[in-house]
Amino acid sequence: MGTEHSPEVLDRIYEPVRERLDKVGDDLSALSRNQSPFLAELLGHVLENKGKRIRPALALLASNFHPNDGRKAEIMAAAVELLHIASLIHDDTVDNSEVRRGRPTVNSRWGRDTAVLLGDYVFATSAIYVCDTGSIRVIRQFSKAAMELSSGELEEIAAVNNWNETREEYLERIYRKTASLFCNVGEAGAVLSGASEDIVQSLTWYSRNLGMAFQIVDDILDIQATSEEMGKPVGSDLARGIMTLPAIIAVERHPKNNPFFSLFQDDGDEESQSRAVDLMQDSSVIRESYEVAEQYGRKALDCLSGLTQSPSRDSMEDLVAYVVGRRS
Amino acid sequence: MGTEHSPEVLDRIYEPVRERLDKVGDDLSALSRNQSPFLAELLGHVLENKGKRIRPALALLASNFHPNDGRKAEIMAAAVELLHIASLIHDDTVDNSEVRRGRPTVNSRWGRDTAVLLGDYVFATSAIYVCDTGSIRVIRQFSKAAMELSSGELEEIAAVNNWNETREEYLERIYRKTASLFCNVGEAGAVLSGASEDIVQSLTWYSRNLGMAFQIVDDILDIQATSEEMGKPVGSDLARGIMTLPAIIAVERHPKNNPFFSLFQDDGDEESQSRAVDLMQDSSVIRESYEVAEQYGRKALDCLSGLTQSPSRDSMEDLVAYVVGRRS
Repeated sequence: MGTEHSPEVLDRIYEPVRERLDKVGDDLSALSRNQSPFLAELLGHVLENKGKRIRPALALLASNFHPNDGRKAEIMAAAVELLHIASLIHDDTVDNSEVRRGRPTVNSRWGRDTAVLLGDYVFATSAIYVCDTGSIRVIRQFSKAAMELSSGELEEIAAVNNWNETREEYLERIYRKTASLFCNVGEAGAVLSGASEDIVQSLTWYSRNLGMAFQIVDDILDIQATSEEMGKPVGSDLARGIMTLPAIIAVERHPKNNPFFSLFQDDGDEESQSRAVDLMQDSSVIRESYEVAEQYGRKALDCLSGLTQSPSRDSMEDLVAYVVGRRS
Repeated sequence: MGTEHSPEVLDRIYEPVRERLDKVGDDLSALSRNQSPFLAELLGHVLENKGKRIRPALALLASNFHPNDGRKAEIMAAAVELLHIASLIHDDTVDNSEVRRGRPTVNSRWGRDTAVLLGDYVFATSAIYVCDTGSIRVIRQFSKAAMELSSGELEEIAAVNNWNETREEYLERIYRKTASLFCNVGEAGAVLSGASEDIVQSLTWYSRNLGMAFQIVDDILDIQATSEEMGKPVGSDLARGIMTLPAIIAVERHPKNNPFFSLFQDDGDEESQSRAVDLMQDSSVIRESYEVAEQYGRKALDCLSGLTQSPSRDSMEDLVAYVVGRRS
């Protein structure tokens, strides 16, 4: 699988839906118009900061396997990006993050209270969008994904300082936190295009596996990246007492005398911290972690095998390579 | 209008829907089952604490003007109570409240991070419930009410220390914060019963006016109640720099040399604080505030005039008297 990861690569992958993706972006930017000055300022801040746009792109790509006018998938794309933005606003509040993608977070600039309420507002706005798809199935799955997202994050809090967490618990948690929404997006794109249930299932499972790979790589990058690359501190999960796959693999390899136990028992022990980071950054631990992501990547590709060849299918294959190969 | 306000009065008002209201309560309590230990504990805490249940009762009463099996209105009743609970969890977090109805808040017992995520979880759960009504119209209005609720609270933050706020601005803000959801609940109950559009409109506007009266009285009680009665400190709105109707009336009467200006400019000035409370607690200011609530109450009663006489209509009339007459 490839290791390309620059924004140009994503632009090329998004080619079959790029114009529509830009249109969705413009629609979202327009949300800050006709608002009170305070809300306009807040919405302007969170909506102008475009990320990778993987979720909206996925909604649009998944709608390209059955003829349709594309309008409902665009609405879905906007809805899922809004839900993602809402969850980032609350995540940054919960983590007390100062910076996201090089810019101040809502909580750091306007305070945590405003961030809580703005997240609620954007969340509710995403729900209005998804209603406009007119599909009860899609709306229901969207609400379920939102519920799983927050339950995954609550489980993360419950698992803080649990150095003993298993792979299975970790995988269940990242399914809820990330893959559930990916899953919903792929399903929604396909359902809204009017595709047959076979195609819907293929795209749902493709998206689920893609989401798992995406979160695993995100967690690997968390311990590898320098502050400049991620726009957040190195090893932020470990600092919060959260075990991710590299940490779990490190514990599996060193069941006795591993530094995670003392690190999580005795908060702030610098020597344990440094040993834990070393164990996680061990090249074979990183390699094994990427291998797990690649397994999900292969499963995602398998799900595409029954679909007709098309530029959108090619893009979805390339998206897998991008996700498991990305280094930022 | 009456001034009865004990829980027994509400029980009597809810009589036409009491069994179904209890059933909805049991359904909600069951949500904490089959969850992870952490989530079960959190949900148990927020769901066992039953409040006045005005919103779910309203959904059920509004569904009684057209023959139907009642199931969809019960789902709606559960959805709106969950949304209300989610908003209380976030409100308490934003306000840093320690206690609600005599029990520790989620933020005080488990921390603000958990409270933010639990609120999101309960919010998303309410969205799943409302999907089960099967009515896109109801789901969309529900999302809109949730959006208006958070925008009303954001406007409250934007209006902090604005001693110059007008009645119109205040009324618009409490519409968003409270009456919009009441409005949605009355509409939903009627729509889900299959009632004609005339009946739907009557019940929508009844609920909107009831919601306005409810919030105005809530704001009056905020400055009148002792800590024991409300389970929160006296004059908490004023302490947060929020102008409510009694404060606005006090400023209208004393346009010059009023203490609100210096109170909000010079945070913590005890003399201004005490003068402001005195002006707001003036019996004629309180009376005028109640009169505004009563005007909304009368409008609510007018909306019922075209509906067939029934125990549910009687209850809705009594509910108006309860809301504008309540002293706790």
